[in-house]
Amino acid sequence: MSDLIRFGVSLNSKLLKQFDSLIEKEGYKNRSEAIRDLIRERLISEEWRDDDKETVGVFSLVYDHHKRDLTKHLNSIQHKYLEVIKSSTHLHIDHDNCLEVIILMGKSKDIRKVSDLLASTKGIKHGKLIMTSKGTDIE
Amino acid sequence: MSDLIRFGVSLNSKLLKQFDSLIEKEGYKNRSEAIRDLIRERLISEEWRDDDKETVGVFSLVYDHHKRDLTKHLNSIQHKYLEVIKSSTHLHIDHDNCLEVIILMGKSKDIRKVSDLLASTKGIKHGKLIMTSKGTDIE
Amino acid sequence: MSDLIRFGVSLNSKLLKQFDSLIEKEGYKNRSEAIRDLIRERLISEEWRDDDKETVGVFSLVYDHHKRDLTKHLNSIQHKYLEVIKSSTHLHIDHDNCLEVIILMGKSKDIRKVSDLLASTKGIKHGKLIMTSKGTDIE
Amino acid sequence: MSDLIRFGVSLNSKLLKQFDSLIEKEGYKNRSEAIRDLIRERLISEEWRDDDKETVGVFSLVYDHHKRDLTKHLNSIQHKYLEVIKSSTHLHIDHDNCLEVIILMGKSKDIRKVSDLLASTKGIKHGKLIMTSKGTDIE
Repeated sequence: MSDLIRFGVSLNSKLLKQFDSLIEKEGYKNRSEAIRDLIRERLISEEWRDDDKETVGVFSLVYDHHKRDLTKHLNSIQHKYLEVIKSSTHLHIDHDNCLEVIILMGKSKDIRKVSDLLASTKGIKHGKLIMTSKGTDIE
Repeated sequence: MSDLIRFGVSLNSKLLKQFDSLIEKEGYKNRSEAIRDLIRERLISEEWRDDDKETVGVFSLVYDHHKRDLTKHLNSIQHKYLEVIKSSTHLHIDHDNCLEVIILMGKSKDIRKVSDLLASTKGIKHGKLIMTSKGTDIE
Repeated sequence: MSDLIRFGVSLNSKLLKQFDSLIEKEGYKNRSEAIRDLIRERLISEEWRDDDKETVGVFSLVYDHHKRDLTKHLNSIQHKYLEVIKSSTHLHIDHDNCLEVIILMGKSKDIRKVSDLLASTKGIKHGKLIMTSKGTDIE
Repeated sequence: MSDLIRFGVSLNSKLLKQFDSLIEKEGYKNRSEAIRDLIRERLISEEWRDDDKETVGVFSLVYDHHKRDLTKHLNSIQHKYLEVIKSSTHLHIDHDNCLEVIILMGKSKDIRKVSDLLASTKGIKHGKLIMTSKGTDIE
């Protein structure tokens, strides 16, 4: 964390101006932070090409909770893959719809497999996976 | 929910075979469910092109919790945008790294704005937004 | 091509209505064609996970043709990877800028490698790869 | 082109090492060039959120040329949108399959519209759009 390295980047003035105005809009305090984020994003998408990489996924599901079998089925998947599923948060969207957010940790291939299973459950309106990172290799 | 419509789809036998083997791998019970998911996915990505659409986002952040100012700053953003941020789940990944998953509800442009702010916070290792849906218009 | 199989798909009426209006806007003549495209898209993105799959890529480059060394360098890459690069189309955008579109055929890993090399050439303003397909396995 | 600005970026040594090894693999000569590409990529994806932005698209189509009506239909679309379609390259993939790459220039919304029309043509196996740039605002 401590050993920051400072190096120079050359950028055309026009491109730099456009970049500055974009990152200001997004709330960045300085260029280094914005460039760090572009680099991290690139490295993490590369990480997920390795099936055996230990990593973190966040899976979101939208569904109608009136479908009783659905809840049962989702529970059974979550219990079957206890070692990959770390936590689950439930939010009531409206009278019918719920959002469930599941945090997964493990090999990227196992996270993909469990999220495929969840997404393919009958009655799910939308299932989507964020491929993020344990942060261990990312500073 | 009740009024299902059944219609015919014509597909080349070879293409159908490939599709069947892919969805079996992913855990789908039948073609209708898999096709419904492809359609929903397409509709939701279309929804997010409308800035004023009421919708749901799930934002994940990975960061080092030792950075005290970071936690403070994340809290202050979350309190400032109370009407958009619905819940927040915290998970300890290892001694240094944490995952925080924030559920956002509101207009797509407001969700984008808050998630830009969160992502651009100094010290965040990875921030990523799932654009999902309230489910109200999606059956 | 000849052996079309017809099967039934059940869809909620509301979802179907939304889908119909989207595909009408996009110009589809009927649902089968639109569903076929969703399926093909899904299968092709799956194909590209296999490094050794024989496939087709389309790479586009935007650059300033006044940079003489750039043109030379791009040519030398194209000549070095003759067996992968099938054709190249050049378009003058304005006084300074050119678009070059390169068609690549071969193993997905080789297409990726050549497009990485092209994209990383100094002076390229934007390089982007379409991962498409030979069409042989797709009907 | 001429007025390069040099500024400092601070990066953690571990992150920098990972970045260096990734960009070396991709063929970059130095960090500035790789960072410039990350920035340009980000700016161009932002550009395409503006419907009226003058820009460039590259559309690729894979299809079976034995379907005579298809070729006719593709031609009629291309003639109808002459002011947007700049060029078209045809490549024979095998006995049955062809690749056609069409270069489009105009407002982003018009490029989207024409590529929707092309993609939705019956018999197309895969249609995909690269959203690139005129390069005028990108250095």
